[in-house]
Amino acid sequence: MNQRINQLFGIEYPIVQGGMIWCSGWELASAVSNAGGLGLIGSGSMYPEVLRAHIQRCKEATNKPFGVNVPLLYPDIDQHLDIIVDEGVKIVFTSAGNPAKYTGWLKERGITVVHVIANTKFAKKCEDAGVDAVVAEGFEAGGHNGREETTTMCLVPMIVDCVKIPVIAAGGIGCGRTMAAAMCLGASGVQVGSRFAASLESSAHIGFKEQIIAAKEGSTELTLKEITPVRLLKNAFFEQVESAYANGATLEELKTLLGRGRAKKGMFEGDLESGELEIGQISARLDRIETASEIVSQMIEEYRTIAGDNPFFGF
Amino acid sequence: MNQRINQLFGIEYPIVQGGMIWCSGWELASAVSNAGGLGLIGSGSMYPEVLRAHIQRCKEATNKPFGVNVPLLYPDIDQHLDIIVDEGVKIVFTSAGNPAKYTGWLKERGITVVHVIANTKFAKKCEDAGVDAVVAEGFEAGGHNGREETTTMCLVPMIVDCVKIPVIAAGGIGCGRTMAAAMCLGASGVQVGSRFAASLESSAHIGFKEQIIAAKEGSTELTLKEITPVRLLKNAFFEQVESAYANGATLEELKTLLGRGRAKKGMFEGDLESGELEIGQISARLDRIETASEIVSQMIEEYRTIAGDNPFFGF
Repeated sequence: MNQRINQLFGIEYPIVQGGMIWCSGWELASAVSNAGGLGLIGSGSMYPEVLRAHIQRCKEATNKPFGVNVPLLYPDIDQHLDIIVDEGVKIVFTSAGNPAKYTGWLKERGITVVHVIANTKFAKKCEDAGVDAVVAEGFEAGGHNGREETTTMCLVPMIVDCVKIPVIAAGGIGCGRTMAAAMCLGASGVQVGSRFAASLESSAHIGFKEQIIAAKEGSTELTLKEITPVRLLKNAFFEQVESAYANGATLEELKTLLGRGRAKKGMFEGDLESGELEIGQISARLDRIETASEIVSQMIEEYRTIAGDNPFFGF
Repeated sequence: MNQRINQLFGIEYPIVQGGMIWCSGWELASAVSNAGGLGLIGSGSMYPEVLRAHIQRCKEATNKPFGVNVPLLYPDIDQHLDIIVDEGVKIVFTSAGNPAKYTGWLKERGITVVHVIANTKFAKKCEDAGVDAVVAEGFEAGGHNGREETTTMCLVPMIVDCVKIPVIAAGGIGCGRTMAAAMCLGASGVQVGSRFAASLESSAHIGFKEQIIAAKEGSTELTLKEITPVRLLKNAFFEQVESAYANGATLEELKTLLGRGRAKKGMFEGDLESGELEIGQISARLDRIETASEIVSQMIEEYRTIAGDNPFFGF
C-alpha cells in the first residue's frame, strides 16, 4: 500500500520535503533526495533565471529524483514552467491555483504532477484534471493555508475517502510518530515543511531558524484570512496585523500593511521584527538545527519502531 | 503499552465517550460502557439532583465502569462532587479549571481522576497534582478549547513527551483510523465526542443531531476567543457573533450577546438559529445517526484492520 508514493517518484522513503519559499533551494532539495526522500525546490521565491540556476545545481548535487514546487498564482509562472521542462525536471508540485490549468500541459511533457489542496472540492478537481497525487495540507501547516481550517487529523481521511489517487499528508508532520499516524489516516506519504525549514541546508536566514527552534505552543497563528490565510510566527509585524484588526481595518488597509516582500525580509534577510515569518505549529516541537539527512533517518528509524513488520506500514 | 487506559478504568477498549453538556446523560454513558468503552455523564449541564438521578439510572443500566465529567468552573461544583462520592462513582474527568484544587480530595475518596488539558503547562500541573491520566484535546474538538489552537497531531506527541501518566487523545477522533493515528502519536486511548453527540442514545435534540450529520468542511469555527474559545456550528447566532466582531464589539458586548443558556437552547431544545451549537470539525465526516454500540464496534473493527497483530497497537 505505502509503496504508491515511492513508486510514483522513484524514491526510497515516502517523505517529501515541502518546496517552501526562501528555504528550499538546491542545497536542501538535493540533500533530502540524497537521503532517500523527495527534495523540492521552492520556485515561489525565485526569479526565472534563479530557478534555472537552482535546478542546474541540484542536478549536479544528486542523481536521485527531485522536483520543483510552483505556486500557480505567481507572475512568472509561464517562464518557470518553460524552464522546468527545458531543464528536464520530472516532478512538479503545484499549489495556490486551479490544477486544471497546467496539469495537462505538464503531463504531455512527461512530468508527474502533484497539487496541494486543503478540501475535498479541490481534491476532486485535481483527480478530474489528471493530477497524479495530492498533498492534503492541514490547518497546523505553516504559510498559506485553507479557509476551512480543517486540521490534518480531520482532513486526510476525508481526502483519502474522496479520491483514488495517492494522498500525501502535510501539516503537523515532522517525526516518525506523526508519519505513522498519517499512514493510519490513509495517506501514502508525508510532506514535511517546518523541520526542514530549520535544517542546516535550508536557505532561510539563521536568525529565522533560531526563531523556529525557540517557538513554543501558541507561538504561531493563522492570520490575514481576508487576503489569503497564512500561519505566521508571532512577532512585531504580527502584532501590527492584530492591532489593525482591533481597529477594524478594511481589506485594502490590510493589503497595504502587508505590502510586498515581507516574507523575504523576515525569512531570508533575517529581519525578525518587520518580516513575515511563515512556519507551522510543529515548530513548538523542534529544538535544534539538524542536517536533512539526520531528519530523514531519524524519522524512518522512529517510524520503523512503530511499524514493526506490520504489512500496513510496509515500504 | 495500550493496556494502560484499559487497566486504569477496568474497561475492554480504550475508547472514552466525552462527557458533553446536553448530550451525555445516563442513556449514552451506559450504552458506551456496555459496549466496552468508558461512558461519561456530562454534569456540566445538570442541576445537582438531576446529576444524582442520572448516576442512579446509569448504575441500573450497566454493571460496567462509568464516570462523570465535571467542569471545575461551574457554580454547583461542591454539590456535584459530594453527590459523585455519595453515589459511589469511581471515575471523574475534570476540565476547565485548576486540577490541583480537587484532585487530592477525590483521590482520598478512592476516585480515579482524569483532567482535560490543551497544553504542556497544564499537563505538568496535572501530573504534579496526582491526576491519573490526562485528556489532550486538540483545536479540532468541539465546544471549549485551548487558546494556543494546537491541533491533535501537534499536541498529543508534545503531551506524551512531557508527562509519564497516560494520555488520552481527543479532537478529530471518531473512527478506527484516527484512533490508530492517535496511538502512533503516543496516546494510550482516545476520547470521542462529536460522533457520540450524534448517536441515538445522545440526549441532544434530534434537530441538532441532524445538523451535525449535515455539517461539511468549514461548517464549524472556533470563536469567542476573548471569553473562552469555543468551536461552534455556523448558524444565525454564529453570524451575529461575526457581525459583532466586524463592528469592533468589546468584551462586555460579546458577553451580553452570548448571554446565558444558549447551549441548552440550541443543543437540547433544538433552537438551531439562536442556540449555541457546540461540535467538532469531525462532524464533516459523519453522515448518519448510529447507536453507541455500533460506533464502538465499527471503530474497533477498523482499528484492528490497521493494527493487525502489531504489538505496538495491542490491547
